Amino acid sequence: MKALPLSKVYQLIEPGPVVLLTTARKGRANVMTMSWHMMVEFEPPLIACVVSGANHSFAALRATGECVIAIPARKLAPKVVQVGNSSGRDIDKFEAFDLTAVPAARVAAPLVAECFANLECRVSDRRLVNAYNLFILEVLKAWTDPAQRNPKTIHHHGYGRFVVDGPAITLKSKMR
Amino acid sequence: MKALPLSKVYQLIEPGPVVLLTTARKGRANVMTMSWHMMVEFEPPLIACVVSGANHSFAALRATGECVIAIPARKLAPKVVQVGNSSGRDIDKFEAFDLTAVPAARVAAPLVAECFANLECRVSDRRLVNAYNLFILEVLKAWTDPAQRNPKTIHHHGYGRFVVDGPAITLKSKMR
Repeated sequence: MKALPLSKVYQLIEPGPVVLLTTARKGRANVMTMSWHMMVEFEPPLIACVVSGANHSFAALRATGECVIAIPARKLAPKVVQVGNSSGRDIDKFEAFDLTAVPAARVAAPLVAECFANLECRVSDRRLVNAYNLFILEVLKAWTDPAQRNPKTIHHHGYGRFVVDGPAITLKSKMR
Repeated sequence: MKALPLSKVYQLIEPGPVVLLTTARKGRANVMTMSWHMMVEFEPPLIACVVSGANHSFAALRATGECVIAIPARKLAPKVVQVGNSSGRDIDKFEAFDLTAVPAARVAAPLVAECFANLECRVSDRRLVNAYNLFILEVLKAWTDPAQRNPKTIHHHGYGRFVVDGPAITLKSKMR
């Protein structure tokens, strides 16, 4: 894993990929699938996300204030669905789905070695947690895997239908 | 345009497409390009979005509390960039870029006829507007264009680089 400048984090989140979110509480790591997230600020990078109270991860995120957002490429899609279809209440998902938890630098939640990018995050604003389960996260440290070149991400359209990244186009833009 | 059940709105937003956001203030319509948005609730559908204070649309959205989120397909990408590269302070973007403003049913902001989906929205929570320019919107009415079948959306990776939807895959999922 190679450190990614924090100024580039938005380029990973802005396209709207399905991500994994890991937490660790009382020595137990967990991972869930998430699609409700967006950028809020470039730098330091802030990310908003909604974690349903039905998810086992919600309580861990609220209690610890720490998580990792890990971004899977297309080949991990079957595992992403397995993670989304099961609960950390019942099983150790890292073990069950053969995902590799790697210690993070700044948070207790683990990185996911199989993902092409990992963002270590700390909850920085809880004002909308009670109303919508909406957390504002600050990204403290970002990593990418140089071995995964041009990863294609997956985008959820509901009920297990995903669209995979297709061709890239570049248009002359003043937008960051 | 055909009405879309509000329960299906999340399927349009969750994949993370670049969207247009229209506003209307003092009889003048405006449109901007936006990529920082996410679902917050299924039904009634709530969407969070961040609109920079540098955008002319910010003041209109804050003052009127109304907007339309319009979703463009790939063929509109050049216009999406033109919209993003210019300001409603200087020009009438609908006229300049040959976009068709259509009256909405529930809000003063217009629909964009060329987009394959249009969501009429009202600001429902302003608690994070001052801190992050983050608005919570409730979708009041949703429309799709039946003539645009299987539209491919575009996803911004920064500096005018967009990835277009590629192939779809369906995996057995319990996730909505």
